[in-house]
Amino acid sequence: MKKVSFADMRCSLARSLDVVGDWWTLLIVRDVFLGIGRFDDLVADLGISRNLLTERLKRLVERGILERVAYSARPVRYEYRLAEAGRDLVPVVLALTSWGDRWAAPDEGRPMRFVHRSCGYYCDAAVNCSCCGRPLASDNVDIVPGPGGAAGPGTWVVARRLAAASGGQS
Amino acid sequence: MKKVSFADMRCSLARSLDVVGDWWTLLIVRDVFLGIGRFDDLVADLGISRNLLTERLKRLVERGILERVAYSARPVRYEYRLAEAGRDLVPVVLALTSWGDRWAAPDEGRPMRFVHRSCGYYCDAAVNCSCCGRPLASDNVDIVPGPGGAAGPGTWVVARRLAAASGGQS
Repeated sequence: MKKVSFADMRCSLARSLDVVGDWWTLLIVRDVFLGIGRFDDLVADLGISRNLLTERLKRLVERGILERVAYSARPVRYEYRLAEAGRDLVPVVLALTSWGDRWAAPDEGRPMRFVHRSCGYYCDAAVNCSCCGRPLASDNVDIVPGPGGAAGPGTWVVARRLAAASGGQS
Repeated sequence: MKKVSFADMRCSLARSLDVVGDWWTLLIVRDVFLGIGRFDDLVADLGISRNLLTERLKRLVERGILERVAYSARPVRYEYRLAEAGRDLVPVVLALTSWGDRWAAPDEGRPMRFVHRSCGYYCDAAVNCSCCGRPLASDNVDIVPGPGGAAGPGTWVVARRLAAASGGQS
């Protein structure tokens, strides 16, 4: 079966998933965020095959999530660091991690804790409204069509329903 | 190659990814959140094969993300709705969607917009500290070991480094 492309879907969730690539890539972003940016350390930490890691790193650099930086001149050696889009992805990774802390933690409790340096406290990642700062939740958010919305693969039904529900405005 | 299991990793990100399953499942959660909960509508919207959708829905019900509800008695017909863990996943999906709006939107702009009913404004999903409400970002969060942390597949290097950095405290 031909793999369906998420890249052209008129949905930022699908397009994000296309950029991110696969599950491994989020663990790679996690590790680079945690300061594990060298190829051999990533292999050792994740147990990922070297071929797969090479391919994923190449993709993440191409997509602007990671950058490859020389940390030694003689011999030239490289490590990976978060690029701008990758730094911006970290809060999303933290939000998914907090969800996992709530719904999928080991019996002993959460494996990692976050400390927010701005306030100094242990915290979870909360997803809030960028306007008022209060929580976004499944029962208090409406979705309406945006300027780039269109029916197409991945949105055949949803785009039409959203347009109908909002009176065709975008 | 044997597929590496994320289910037993000592990392809530990895374990979340194991529960969620694959990219399709997040689009299924998106659709069910948007009121598209019937099998044929999901097939039509996503272009996913019926076999694959059947398998993914079964998994999502088993994992507590969706529930299967009869909406018609004669004949008995079912639709899918978000279960508790699925409703709790929606804010994470919104956060990833907002990332896609910033980094992967079509030329015409974002395909969908969020309206926060609590304040009435268009908004993005922001990821904030659950204690102080200010933004969590890659440069203001420290990760420390939690009670369920351990070195193992997916955390061989990271668990030891976090433990060393925090003086062995958890």
